[in-house]
Amino acid sequence: MTIKAYGARAGNLPLEPLAITRRAPGEHDVQIDIAYCGVCHSDLHQVRSEWAGTLYPCVPGHEIVGRVSAVGAHVSSHKVGDLVGVGCIVDSCQHCAECDEGLENYCDHMVGTYNFPTPDAPGHTLGGYSQQIVVHERYVLHVRHPKEQLAAVAPLLCAGITTYSPLRHWKVGPGHKVGVVGIGGLGHMGIKLANAMGAHVVAFTTSESKREAAKALGAHEVVVSRNPEEMAVHAQSLDFILNTVAAPHDLDAFLTLLKRDGTMTLVGAPATPHPSPEVFNLIMKRRSLAGSMIGGIPETQEMLDFCAEHGIVADIEMIRADQVNEAYERMLKGDVKYRFVIDCASLGT
Amino acid sequence: MTIKAYGARAGNLPLEPLAITRRAPGEHDVQIDIAYCGVCHSDLHQVRSEWAGTLYPCVPGHEIVGRVSAVGAHVSSHKVGDLVGVGCIVDSCQHCAECDEGLENYCDHMVGTYNFPTPDAPGHTLGGYSQQIVVHERYVLHVRHPKEQLAAVAPLLCAGITTYSPLRHWKVGPGHKVGVVGIGGLGHMGIKLANAMGAHVVAFTTSESKREAAKALGAHEVVVSRNPEEMAVHAQSLDFILNTVAAPHDLDAFLTLLKRDGTMTLVGAPATPHPSPEVFNLIMKRRSLAGSMIGGIPETQEMLDFCAEHGIVADIEMIRADQVNEAYERMLKGDVKYRFVIDCASLGT
Repeated sequence: MTIKAYGARAGNLPLEPLAITRRAPGEHDVQIDIAYCGVCHSDLHQVRSEWAGTLYPCVPGHEIVGRVSAVGAHVSSHKVGDLVGVGCIVDSCQHCAECDEGLENYCDHMVGTYNFPTPDAPGHTLGGYSQQIVVHERYVLHVRHPKEQLAAVAPLLCAGITTYSPLRHWKVGPGHKVGVVGIGGLGHMGIKLANAMGAHVVAFTTSESKREAAKALGAHEVVVSRNPEEMAVHAQSLDFILNTVAAPHDLDAFLTLLKRDGTMTLVGAPATPHPSPEVFNLIMKRRSLAGSMIGGIPETQEMLDFCAEHGIVADIEMIRADQVNEAYERMLKGDVKYRFVIDCASLGT
Repeated sequence: MTIKAYGARAGNLPLEPLAITRRAPGEHDVQIDIAYCGVCHSDLHQVRSEWAGTLYPCVPGHEIVGRVSAVGAHVSSHKVGDLVGVGCIVDSCQHCAECDEGLENYCDHMVGTYNFPTPDAPGHTLGGYSQQIVVHERYVLHVRHPKEQLAAVAPLLCAGITTYSPLRHWKVGPGHKVGVVGIGGLGHMGIKLANAMGAHVVAFTTSESKREAAKALGAHEVVVSRNPEEMAVHAQSLDFILNTVAAPHDLDAFLTLLKRDGTMTLVGAPATPHPSPEVFNLIMKRRSLAGSMIGGIPETQEMLDFCAEHGIVADIEMIRADQVNEAYERMLKGDVKYRFVIDCASLGT
């Protein structure tokens, strides 16, 4: 089936309307009419060939929500009309230790929602800036939020799970003082989620102007990280830090805020390395510097259900598909609170 | 009481015989006639002012074993004639969260065995390159090895606990594949201990010449880390890596050998930073890079008892005190298997 999409034919060209094909649903496939798709910074990196190996045409988008429009004969978990979501993963080997544990995100053969090899035309996966997608039922999530919130649910599929998973893995909860570094697409979700998990949340930002906004998101305290006196107040006091900043920055300034046995987990990978952290800051208090990538499928469902239960969605600005090039420019300037979401109905007009 | 010691009057002077004083034992003090003292790389850094803040005269040495020669009125844990040890710590605040948990090594007011402020003359602590030391009973360990092994027990007080503590904290045991990077004073203990804990031990060295020696220490496999093919065999296979190398080196070469959720713990702090590790290698498999510093007093006793039970001591080369300057030069060249130990009886001659 030929459908409309928005993507780029080369790294130096803007995104434009494209016609792409989707496979007919196989026995275990779910066909989804896409309602909304979030705009992630990864989309921009990939489509502009800032990351290696971009395959063209490139249709980005891995924060997908919509309604099931067809299912394969053996699909039991979803039915036509269901509100569903698809995140960063559309396939994996399904038999390794990681897949067996529901950690498909760490499967060596994980297939990303765009730019990964697939038998389908054109030979690589095409993402959610499109009218429709066909995905194996294992990777399709139930959305239990009210349908009026659907657009704001979309970013949960990447920004939500990417922050939820490390907060859960490092057991953030009541009695914990947790730092969230960076208040953008990921960070604003990190603040909301850590707050809902019962932690005392300290948001770190470089902009004085974000102080009130961070409090509104659920931060109990806000620190302007350029201010050494403000930083010093929190020395050796944090149990966990979720660091969402992908730009190279001084990790030591945050590592020294961790208590003994504290962990700072990075969820953004900078294009050029961070300045090398001081080993001494790790050794002195048995601290850890860790990384985390998205989350597995069962945990993504858990996150969606947690968010539905706690009334959590992303703060979004809706755009038409033909505004995405402009949205990228604004995203680069941090001019969005906090996630652009494409109204995929605009593809049909 | 005035006793003989060996130390330096300045950073650019060799170590030489010194006369120092020790306090009379207080109510909770243990006076120890030092039999042997291990030579740690830290000793050299401190005495040569390669680390900031060296106070002179500097008497290094924090791998101390000997026999109790007097105890204070309220000492219940040790008696005259006991074989005992003293490691890197001779005091701490005794009332913080860390001290309460027996993690005196992470107390913000830990007093190191040398070069830390003390009310005793000359105002800073003087270490084990000496005939005698007086230490609060809390920081004095029981040695349960046969007395014939006493000299080889000395290095357990720093090299032993520094490697034992992270192996225990990260729960190394049967069924685990554990890497030990560097086969020196620390690494050779790490191999012995990880082996005794039941792990499958892979030793990493830059020297082809250490291959057989590492196996003799208890390594099940030995990898020459300069050889990419040998390294590749172990990609994504290690549960834990104990990295004992203080010289700056490529951490990514080892991080990529960790399984999902694996940790590499650094116990050496380089004078200049390691090349900055790739964040991607942390994120991809939720790996951690951590640090660990020595160990607490209860765990040091546990380590000594574990070693006594398993017949573990350090491999040592005994020297006289007046050979210590030469020993430092050899240590810098890696020309020691694997720890120099000073026979402190040589101070009296």
